[in-house]
Amino acid sequence: MNATHADFSWPVRVYWEDTDAGGIVFYANYLKFFERARTEWLRSLGLEQQRLREQGAGMFVVTHSDLRYLRPARLDDLLWVTARLLEAGRASLTIAQQVLLAPTEGDAAPALLCEGRIRVGWVNTEDLRPQRIPAHLLTLLAGNR
Amino acid sequence: MNATHADFSWPVRVYWEDTDAGGIVFYANYLKFFERARTEWLRSLGLEQQRLREQGAGMFVVTHSDLRYLRPARLDDLLWVTARLLEAGRASLTIAQQVLLAPTEGDAAPALLCEGRIRVGWVNTEDLRPQRIPAHLLTLLAGNR
Amino acid sequence: MNATHADFSWPVRVYWEDTDAGGIVFYANYLKFFERARTEWLRSLGLEQQRLREQGAGMFVVTHSDLRYLRPARLDDLLWVTARLLEAGRASLTIAQQVLLAPTEGDAAPALLCEGRIRVGWVNTEDLRPQRIPAHLLTLLAGNR
Amino acid sequence: MNATHADFSWPVRVYWEDTDAGGIVFYANYLKFFERARTEWLRSLGLEQQRLREQGAGMFVVTHSDLRYLRPARLDDLLWVTARLLEAGRASLTIAQQVLLAPTEGDAAPALLCEGRIRVGWVNTEDLRPQRIPAHLLTLLAGNR
Repeated sequence: MNATHADFSWPVRVYWEDTDAGGIVFYANYLKFFERARTEWLRSLGLEQQRLREQGAGMFVVTHSDLRYLRPARLDDLLWVTARLLEAGRASLTIAQQVLLAPTEGDAAPALLCEGRIRVGWVNTEDLRPQRIPAHLLTLLAGNR
Repeated sequence: MNATHADFSWPVRVYWEDTDAGGIVFYANYLKFFERARTEWLRSLGLEQQRLREQGAGMFVVTHSDLRYLRPARLDDLLWVTARLLEAGRASLTIAQQVLLAPTEGDAAPALLCEGRIRVGWVNTEDLRPQRIPAHLLTLLAGNR
Repeated sequence: MNATHADFSWPVRVYWEDTDAGGIVFYANYLKFFERARTEWLRSLGLEQQRLREQGAGMFVVTHSDLRYLRPARLDDLLWVTARLLEAGRASLTIAQQVLLAPTEGDAAPALLCEGRIRVGWVNTEDLRPQRIPAHLLTLLAGNR
Repeated sequence: MNATHADFSWPVRVYWEDTDAGGIVFYANYLKFFERARTEWLRSLGLEQQRLREQGAGMFVVTHSDLRYLRPARLDDLLWVTARLLEAGRASLTIAQQVLLAPTEGDAAPALLCEGRIRVGWVNTEDLRPQRIPAHLLTLLAGNR
């Protein structure tokens, strides 16, 4: 699950809101960072989730998250959050994601802070029932695997 | 704006999620605590907001918040969050709220940590346009001023 | 991973802050609910995390989270969040947790909304290096497996 | 309190985490957006808050917030969040802030969604007691009024 040049990457700055009294980023907030990167990855493919919802096409909901927290992020850190499509099924996607600490002067490489896999299902906006991912979405997504 | 026996009061415990790297509760989170107390105050009057929305009656949105942060709350603190109706207009309410530190042994009285005023308007669920607060809601609310 | 009478259980009410524009609880917020239940489970054993930190004893940090989101929680839902110790090592604990929808009239049983496993490590408060869980903590925790 | 070309401005995208079941940004989250803009405004002046804390210089804590919510922000909106120093005292600053909706094609001007004033005090990192803002900070800040 190494980051490659092909992964989508999104910068995230750590603010006070993200940290806790332990002086580090609160563990739930990595899921926020992951979600931002997935949203920007979709946007980079031309997919606006608010528009898809308004059109009644459907929306993604997370069905599984599996995260390993390796090293803590801290206030003012600049992070890179990646997203890479691992699998695209008829009604769900599995995405590999990482949080990397952006290198500052003297650092050889970005440090891996957190990594995980997120599975999302495509559901009807009204009743949240699973449904097939529309073909044109799947084409856009799979073309970027 | 002193707390009186007539104020509605709701207990809130401070968890890791509420704190920041300064070791204290992050300032935005007092607005979460205030919202919880307003919701429980409404519930104590028999008003369930999710049900009101589903019935298409409308919902409250905040139009003004004014908070003074006097002393910080910390991890594990037990807080009392109060709500008291100051004014009820045709389309809006003004509510006075406080966050108090629950007294532990040896403390004479709860310490005031934060206080403020919140103004909420009643809007249509679909287009968020202001509308009159339904008469039966107003009766319930005003009866508890 | 069924809930049993031996599991610790903590009530959590769903507020506006917990929901998102999809009308359901945002996926990261289940990790907040899990953390509240773990904290209250520790408190029920006599362990106050703020006091442990002030005493320089150390603190728990999450190293792994694995969650399955089965059915969504919504505004005003009353949830029960459970915690059960699965494994206690020298420097880490694994805890099984569930989010259940409290039964309302007519429901036969609480519905399982989310379940997962959380691994926490015990670290030095200053440098966050892993260290052995103090013996008296381990005794308290393991006695309640 | 009109925005001028002299105001510091920071882009903020609205993600799922920021919205609530009403379909709009939760009112507490504007305080997060305001804080991000203040932090980036300080960073633009060469002030890193994490470094100031580590040096034991002190930190800012909010003592007063006063916000008016005029129009709601929604999922996927691109916002501009401004910060402008109104007053610099010996131990506190007052900052005027706005949240504007970035214009899309066809819009004549950015729409004002939220505006407010934030007062911050400078405190000792250890005991949170108010203290004088260091002279070099005040010079940096006041030079940018």
